[in-house]
Amino acid sequence: MEYIVKGDIAYNKSLNEFESIHNGYLHVKDGKIVKAMKSLPKELKKKKLIDYTGKLILPGMADLHLHASQFAYKGTLMDVTLLEWLDKYTFPREAAFKDEKHAKKAYKVFVDCLKKSFTTKAVIFATIHLEGTYILCELLEKAGIDAYVGIVDMDRNCPDYISQTVEGARKDNIELIKRLKDFKHVKPCITPRFTVSCTDPMMKMLGEVRKEYGVASQSHLDENEEEIAFVKELCPDAKSYTDTYDRVGLLDHSVMAHCIYVTDEEMKTLKEKDVYLVHCPESNTNVTTGGIMPVRKYLDYGMHVGIGSDVAGGSTLNLFANLKLAIQLSKVINHGGRNNYKPLNAKEALYIGTLGGASYFGKAGSFMEGYDADILVIDDVKGDPSSMKFGIEDRLERLMYNANESFLVAKYIDGRKVYERK
Amino acid sequence: MEYIVKGDIAYNKSLNEFESIHNGYLHVKDGKIVKAMKSLPKELKKKKLIDYTGKLILPGMADLHLHASQFAYKGTLMDVTLLEWLDKYTFPREAAFKDEKHAKKAYKVFVDCLKKSFTTKAVIFATIHLEGTYILCELLEKAGIDAYVGIVDMDRNCPDYISQTVEGARKDNIELIKRLKDFKHVKPCITPRFTVSCTDPMMKMLGEVRKEYGVASQSHLDENEEEIAFVKELCPDAKSYTDTYDRVGLLDHSVMAHCIYVTDEEMKTLKEKDVYLVHCPESNTNVTTGGIMPVRKYLDYGMHVGIGSDVAGGSTLNLFANLKLAIQLSKVINHGGRNNYKPLNAKEALYIGTLGGASYFGKAGSFMEGYDADILVIDDVKGDPSSMKFGIEDRLERLMYNANESFLVAKYIDGRKVYERK
Repeated sequence: MEYIVKGDIAYNKSLNEFESIHNGYLHVKDGKIVKAMKSLPKELKKKKLIDYTGKLILPGMADLHLHASQFAYKGTLMDVTLLEWLDKYTFPREAAFKDEKHAKKAYKVFVDCLKKSFTTKAVIFATIHLEGTYILCELLEKAGIDAYVGIVDMDRNCPDYISQTVEGARKDNIELIKRLKDFKHVKPCITPRFTVSCTDPMMKMLGEVRKEYGVASQSHLDENEEEIAFVKELCPDAKSYTDTYDRVGLLDHSVMAHCIYVTDEEMKTLKEKDVYLVHCPESNTNVTTGGIMPVRKYLDYGMHVGIGSDVAGGSTLNLFANLKLAIQLSKVINHGGRNNYKPLNAKEALYIGTLGGASYFGKAGSFMEGYDADILVIDDVKGDPSSMKFGIEDRLERLMYNANESFLVAKYIDGRKVYERK
Repeated sequence: MEYIVKGDIAYNKSLNEFESIHNGYLHVKDGKIVKAMKSLPKELKKKKLIDYTGKLILPGMADLHLHASQFAYKGTLMDVTLLEWLDKYTFPREAAFKDEKHAKKAYKVFVDCLKKSFTTKAVIFATIHLEGTYILCELLEKAGIDAYVGIVDMDRNCPDYISQTVEGARKDNIELIKRLKDFKHVKPCITPRFTVSCTDPMMKMLGEVRKEYGVASQSHLDENEEEIAFVKELCPDAKSYTDTYDRVGLLDHSVMAHCIYVTDEEMKTLKEKDVYLVHCPESNTNVTTGGIMPVRKYLDYGMHVGIGSDVAGGSTLNLFANLKLAIQLSKVINHGGRNNYKPLNAKEALYIGTLGGASYFGKAGSFMEGYDADILVIDDVKGDPSSMKFGIEDRLERLMYNANESFLVAKYIDGRKVYERK
């Protein structure tokens, strides 16, 4: 499959390298980007041209952290504390995914909405249930959305009805890994909920399975101070919260959500271990005991930072809304100019939302040669009328601040159109 | 004109009194609410019924602070400081409204977008220009949007090309007041930009005009610490920033935007003088030197608090987005549980967005008897699919977190339908 996409192209080559082409051409072949160009060379003029003149053409975005099973109640129950929210609402509702009929119904709505969102790559928590998780994987695979999906493992500090045995969890994780062997879009991911809810034997077992099958891994890290104190109590032998994952092989090239209160020593380890840190600004401001990730500090240190909707701590799949809040919170850190903290700008935010996070999937999140042809076609002009005409950079910034899903005209993942606005 | 609106009704009677009626009826007569009811009495069954079953029916929202002339470039140029933003972008662009053709074009787009927004009442800054401001007033009047609109007065700390003389400003303000005499929806509002840009004689004159014609008044107050220090320097005789308005008669029953760094003494004065404090969370997080309004403190003290989009410091007319951020920022204040600050909840946010601010316009922002029939019809179910069914309170909260203008089905102001989604 080979075609050309025409429109106003913008993408990052790295954190500090941003490219834009007005009325440009994007050459796609066999699901990969060949090249983004200012004009069409003669030999390509006979190829199929998909004309989106006037629309913004951006790389697909990566949502590095979200709980698919919580999607149904996002934006509700936000005025309780994290623990009350988990015990009273989330645990019982995750438990309901034992019922496959329920899982099918709920995950179908989730995947339908994810298709219409700006997300092309996602790293997802399901629930403790093998069959429910597999149903989610099948729906994502069918939708053509590239994703890492994990059974959520937990065996302490949670109600019995949503707790596993170590042996049961081992069996289920291995079974899921095997079932996903021939999936093109969906890959398994070892997913301890977080250290608080996994005993040492559970963590050890998960590290072993990960090593044996060479799969990805994700969890939560350093989200709030209470949690960190509790982890210290639960794991007196660990050097740090980060170490509770590292010592069992669950840190190396993993995806870690939140990472707000990271010590200098943890930073060093996280960088060495090539960890992807996920900024979840919506969630961190919705959950009352959160905080603000010092994104600039991590970027300056050369770490991987991506964005996460963290539905349902976050209330929306809209990653632009998350990036906007990321920019705003980077300014809140600096209120009154007190902290000499350089706020994020829109181009840096685009990087975090695309290449910064999507590179966990390999060559993804950019329009450089050989990258996955994940393409967003966005109507930022009719969607958000103005009496002024802007260049691409201003349009991108405006989009960052005001985009909602109704702006999305079409979405391609790995070169295949997965959504088109009617 | 008399009719009944059917749907899922929610509104505040006061900050702590929230009402909701599933499948309820709203009786509207001559532009006013007669009653919100659980069932339809016999004598009303023959009246015209507008059936919005399944939709949320909320009071119209009041945007207490926005700059109409800045609408065109909202969401751009957000990574510069306030002063650079004013000097480099905003002042030249406001100056362009001297050209009536430009004003017509730009204000038309603004008013068209305002019609499609959740806003039914607005308190608006135009520019220094009489004719441009009048064009805006005509467009708002024609659209049927209730608004206070002001010529923006300034004669210091601004470029010559956007500065007035005191006499010129007097003449223009009086002329606008006279021209608006027979307008039904639009009323004049004395509008010193802020103390920094108005000399003592200018402020004195504006106070005199206000007194003579008995009109409304608005300005900015206590937005950032640098500004406050500058005002102190400019007005060494004033007791406080608040006093610079009070001593010339521009504080009493005025609308004051931002009010972040308010001293206890200023709080006392602001309450005594019945001032409406406008929380502009989007703007305060976009502008790098901002801060967070301590909303809870003001509500506890019994002050009027409304919401303001503050376009283009704020990037959106969407007042739900502003209320969401108001809730989020009220949690940021409390990060780590340090400040024992009780965050806002969705019902309180609805109050701030409706009755809290709209009451500046008289009986408005609620569905109590005799209130203006400002009605929003919102599709929160199709607009934001879920596999769960929620009660009205949960739906309201979900809406607060996720609403965008594409959810709006219809909007009525003073009983008249001003917008309907196609």
